[in-house]
Amino acid sequence: MIVVMKQGTRDDQLEDFQRILDGLGVKGHFSKGVHTTIVGLVGDTSRVDIDSIGSLSYVETVKRIQEPYKSANRKFHPDDTVIDIGGHKIGGGYMQVIAGPCSVESEEQICEVAKAAQASGATMLRGGAFKPRTSPYAFQGLRAEGIELLLKAKALTGMPIVTEIMSGDQLPLFDEVDVIQVGARNMQNFELLKLLGKTNKPILLKRGLANTMEELLMSAEYIMAGGNMQVILCERGIRTFETATRNTLDISAIPMLKRLSHLPVVVDPSHAAGIPWMVEPLSLSAIAAGADGLIIEVHNNPSKALSDGPQSLRPAEFDAVMKKIGGMMGYMGKKS
Amino acid sequence: MIVVMKQGTRDDQLEDFQRILDGLGVKGHFSKGVHTTIVGLVGDTSRVDIDSIGSLSYVETVKRIQEPYKSANRKFHPDDTVIDIGGHKIGGGYMQVIAGPCSVESEEQICEVAKAAQASGATMLRGGAFKPRTSPYAFQGLRAEGIELLLKAKALTGMPIVTEIMSGDQLPLFDEVDVIQVGARNMQNFELLKLLGKTNKPILLKRGLANTMEELLMSAEYIMAGGNMQVILCERGIRTFETATRNTLDISAIPMLKRLSHLPVVVDPSHAAGIPWMVEPLSLSAIAAGADGLIIEVHNNPSKALSDGPQSLRPAEFDAVMKKIGGMMGYMGKKS
Amino acid sequence: MIVVMKQGTRDDQLEDFQRILDGLGVKGHFSKGVHTTIVGLVGDTSRVDIDSIGSLSYVETVKRIQEPYKSANRKFHPDDTVIDIGGHKIGGGYMQVIAGPCSVESEEQICEVAKAAQASGATMLRGGAFKPRTSPYAFQGLRAEGIELLLKAKALTGMPIVTEIMSGDQLPLFDEVDVIQVGARNMQNFELLKLLGKTNKPILLKRGLANTMEELLMSAEYIMAGGNMQVILCERGIRTFETATRNTLDISAIPMLKRLSHLPVVVDPSHAAGIPWMVEPLSLSAIAAGADGLIIEVHNNPSKALSDGPQSLRPAEFDAVMKKIGGMMGYMGKKS
Amino acid sequence: MIVVMKQGTRDDQLEDFQRILDGLGVKGHFSKGVHTTIVGLVGDTSRVDIDSIGSLSYVETVKRIQEPYKSANRKFHPDDTVIDIGGHKIGGGYMQVIAGPCSVESEEQICEVAKAAQASGATMLRGGAFKPRTSPYAFQGLRAEGIELLLKAKALTGMPIVTEIMSGDQLPLFDEVDVIQVGARNMQNFELLKLLGKTNKPILLKRGLANTMEELLMSAEYIMAGGNMQVILCERGIRTFETATRNTLDISAIPMLKRLSHLPVVVDPSHAAGIPWMVEPLSLSAIAAGADGLIIEVHNNPSKALSDGPQSLRPAEFDAVMKKIGGMMGYMGKKS
Repeated sequence: MIVVMKQGTRDDQLEDFQRILDGLGVKGHFSKGVHTTIVGLVGDTSRVDIDSIGSLSYVETVKRIQEPYKSANRKFHPDDTVIDIGGHKIGGGYMQVIAGPCSVESEEQICEVAKAAQASGATMLRGGAFKPRTSPYAFQGLRAEGIELLLKAKALTGMPIVTEIMSGDQLPLFDEVDVIQVGARNMQNFELLKLLGKTNKPILLKRGLANTMEELLMSAEYIMAGGNMQVILCERGIRTFETATRNTLDISAIPMLKRLSHLPVVVDPSHAAGIPWMVEPLSLSAIAAGADGLIIEVHNNPSKALSDGPQSLRPAEFDAVMKKIGGMMGYMGKKS
Repeated sequence: MIVVMKQGTRDDQLEDFQRILDGLGVKGHFSKGVHTTIVGLVGDTSRVDIDSIGSLSYVETVKRIQEPYKSANRKFHPDDTVIDIGGHKIGGGYMQVIAGPCSVESEEQICEVAKAAQASGATMLRGGAFKPRTSPYAFQGLRAEGIELLLKAKALTGMPIVTEIMSGDQLPLFDEVDVIQVGARNMQNFELLKLLGKTNKPILLKRGLANTMEELLMSAEYIMAGGNMQVILCERGIRTFETATRNTLDISAIPMLKRLSHLPVVVDPSHAAGIPWMVEPLSLSAIAAGADGLIIEVHNNPSKALSDGPQSLRPAEFDAVMKKIGGMMGYMGKKS
Repeated sequence: MIVVMKQGTRDDQLEDFQRILDGLGVKGHFSKGVHTTIVGLVGDTSRVDIDSIGSLSYVETVKRIQEPYKSANRKFHPDDTVIDIGGHKIGGGYMQVIAGPCSVESEEQICEVAKAAQASGATMLRGGAFKPRTSPYAFQGLRAEGIELLLKAKALTGMPIVTEIMSGDQLPLFDEVDVIQVGARNMQNFELLKLLGKTNKPILLKRGLANTMEELLMSAEYIMAGGNMQVILCERGIRTFETATRNTLDISAIPMLKRLSHLPVVVDPSHAAGIPWMVEPLSLSAIAAGADGLIIEVHNNPSKALSDGPQSLRPAEFDAVMKKIGGMMGYMGKKS
Repeated sequence: MIVVMKQGTRDDQLEDFQRILDGLGVKGHFSKGVHTTIVGLVGDTSRVDIDSIGSLSYVETVKRIQEPYKSANRKFHPDDTVIDIGGHKIGGGYMQVIAGPCSVESEEQICEVAKAAQASGATMLRGGAFKPRTSPYAFQGLRAEGIELLLKAKALTGMPIVTEIMSGDQLPLFDEVDVIQVGARNMQNFELLKLLGKTNKPILLKRGLANTMEELLMSAEYIMAGGNMQVILCERGIRTFETATRNTLDISAIPMLKRLSHLPVVVDPSHAAGIPWMVEPLSLSAIAAGADGLIIEVHNNPSKALSDGPQSLRPAEFDAVMKKIGGMMGYMGKKS
């Protein structure tokens, strides 16, 4: 952290600043120039509040040099994290395709979609039991019953299941869930993240619609600070001025997150665009950019879907896309 | 809701659509043109899922004409909602200034700030006990103890208190809190909103950093659908490309929200800009645009603040700003 | 400018950097720490290319401390610039209202609007002769004839005229125009800005839809670097994710631009929202935030307007808004 | 175009609307419902101004069904446009890599880079002679001399050259230039676009930092309306809240633009991220998403570059990236 003092800062103010640094347990390297004094902070600055330093009356500006995350930081953990989910590995050259409907609607629906998705090559099953809907009048998910149905589909197919949690008090229902998903709207629900940090389950953490990559990594850090190191980052499109697609897939986030962090990065092309025909080109580009996984919506009857129907692929469409995905995975040297 | 059918839609598809509408309890007014058929939906369309309709294979496009919110909608509730908080009214021409520190830090701090703010004309006290911080290593608030300290300041000054909830399980601690705040990061924490809809306390609902006004009103609708009609909307800046201010205060949201809805609208100029000297011009412009209240950060020692120090006003600065605010309130005919 | 060297930078690299600084005519103050070396650049750094410095193989990061604009910078020109336009002053406590139609359409139209606007208190006339339209098939303005019609309205009313230039070769037509407007889409048409820097006419420079305040000031600097110091900055709304208003008026830009620069700042509430009824609250809030002027669209027959009709006020509506504007100007102590 | 009338619209108003439609040469299909009347507009609505219709006092809302562009629209031109540039085809399965420095700096520099880029597989040479720089104090390009130097490099290597125009009066200097580039800041410089529509040279049109895909296509339409059908669209990153990359590459724009239009789409991964190591993953993902070309910055001495040095690849780095690009082109079946 580099702190630039205001012009005319007095010696007693520099001494005051020295005392503050002592209290924070970091060292300051003071460089007095003709016009200004610059202080370089050395040590563990991840606990130093950049805003508090910036509010000191004699400080002109503060710039962080080190990233504010530690457990998620590749600098301190150079090797890729590989997460094993029921025998399917993700990260470190391993890539998986997670497929399923937006919402679990019935036993028949989830089992039928699971079998079809598996037959096309998907290795994990997704499906929403608790649904975050913008409108209180929209279908809110089957909730506890939805998780039971997912477990039936798991029993039938052997596929590990991925499903979203919306509140800490739902946690007991997730005992047999393989991967707990945190949705974009809850990326900064810090109380929930803290609770998930105490579990020993892989967490699929979706990037918020208007959150920076650094904020995503800080939310991963919340989970990791609690002891749970199994975090999978998910890019699912950000909110911009463009309206031709529902969100804007930030493809650069894949290589950037993988450079900043050792955590696996998966991409959700279904929510990113909100357009079924775009799942194929976005999936291929995500793999080409280095993604460790894909989450794709598949529904056996999209026009009857209780949520997000329009963006889902039908099983036959998904099968065609999976052939292209498999080819690109092979070309890019991805193991599954 | 206007539904435009694809060219070449067959009669049996139109009949299928008629059955779907019957099932939803809305009427369809079919207009067959040479090239296309247009269907106007009449009735309570707030429960119709625009996405599900859009996913029908024969539908080209759907456009909502009516707003998807009802309880929050001024069309169905033309008079301003006025909320009484310990004798202080907000909305319908009444305006209040809520002041206090970002975080409650000690009894001395909160009581001192409360007395100073009250002396300058603030009528309600704010202070964070549960703090949503980007970093897990930053100060997370005094939590339960923070609420106790707020209650001491309330006992001392008689000021109603406003403080943030971050999770439903904290609700029992809010028994004596006057206004429960939902922070920007939790605006779409729908499980929390549902719980708050079951309380009988005023809710101060902050707009998310990247949420539209319609989404804010839909989140208010979540609370109101549960029976709690006392919702105060809060504009606190949105996230844009501009970096000269922390966020971009969306001043247009004040007149627009008040036109779309009957709920009171307050503005947080401290978080919007993140710059103390900007609190005055933004406060004056918010009143001129019709705001029903202001929330301003005041700290007796900003450089020692454990969070968000740089944006806080010192009591003397706040006193000067309040003189300007009082003048503008008078000029705009606002009652307090 | 603060330059932080990479860890392990060698002495010969520091000497290389010293030579580069010598070539640029700036001094470097080197502070060697245990882990890193920090160099503070002193002197006129406005000509130092931050990107070139950042690309040096041994540089970790560069941070600009000083603003990159000089002529527009309040630090070097503490007093407000006051621009006199045909006897009407703008800046330094003086405020003017500029009114008129989006496009000049006929002599009758522009003269009628001019007289009505003047009667309501507007002191300058705006009207588009060259129109930047998104579609090549939309009305492109009356061009040279439009300027002639504006001059007729000026002769009739004595009001100075403000109209937009779209290309340098149109400049000869602007001889009798009082204020040349640069539209948002041309804010970074640097060749045009250079030409305008050689004129001696006030330039009304509109902020681009996605340009930062710093970029706006850099575009003003282009004009001022050519010798023309009469630049009026105009905030007209920026592009964000919000769709309830056409653009998002960045109200914070008013106090911020006036703090960073000595140039006058005017606001265009008509284009910012694109909604006639919102002109009043946005105008009042702009004055309360410190604006030096307003540009308001007025049309005698908005539904027949050849461009941007929906956002225009009718003369009677404008008259009502002007009464409120006049009151607020009085309250804020603005002279006209 | 669908026009929804306000509730209570009278018959004489509907007749007035009929007359307006007659004047515009489009037919209206009126559907009177119990609550509202809906009018479907049939015919060539590309010349109908949606804003003017929306401003009619009895109109509630207007929605465009058809795209407002015609020449650029794939619906009216289903086959891919293939543009031949000195024997190198772009579009319709053909893909080219355009490489070169941000700015032309000297004969030695441009010739050396051209030879190196060609040896690595680039087929066209880019280089800026006229440079749009944010600061008036930054290097503005060698201008006319820069074009001469590009022509020398063309003579030496036989590579067609691509260079940017900033103003219509520079056009005579572009006689021997193969592709004229319009930069992001000039995407809506409509006077320039009109002039380029009168030339017979391919135009590389870069998307503006905050322009939608529809606006990009409308700018292409400006050129095509003048008779020049050789437009190459270029995605180069849009401006968002994210700061980890300079801009956000909108990868979805590739498949979307190619679906909406028949024009070729190229991608500039150098400007999109502003980070040299990211050129490789972004190039591969662009090809996987269907891009028809890439524009990559290469400089023989990035740290001495007079502009945008940090984002340039050195020739050896470019050579390594080209091997990956060549492989991906082969995998995706792209011809060069």
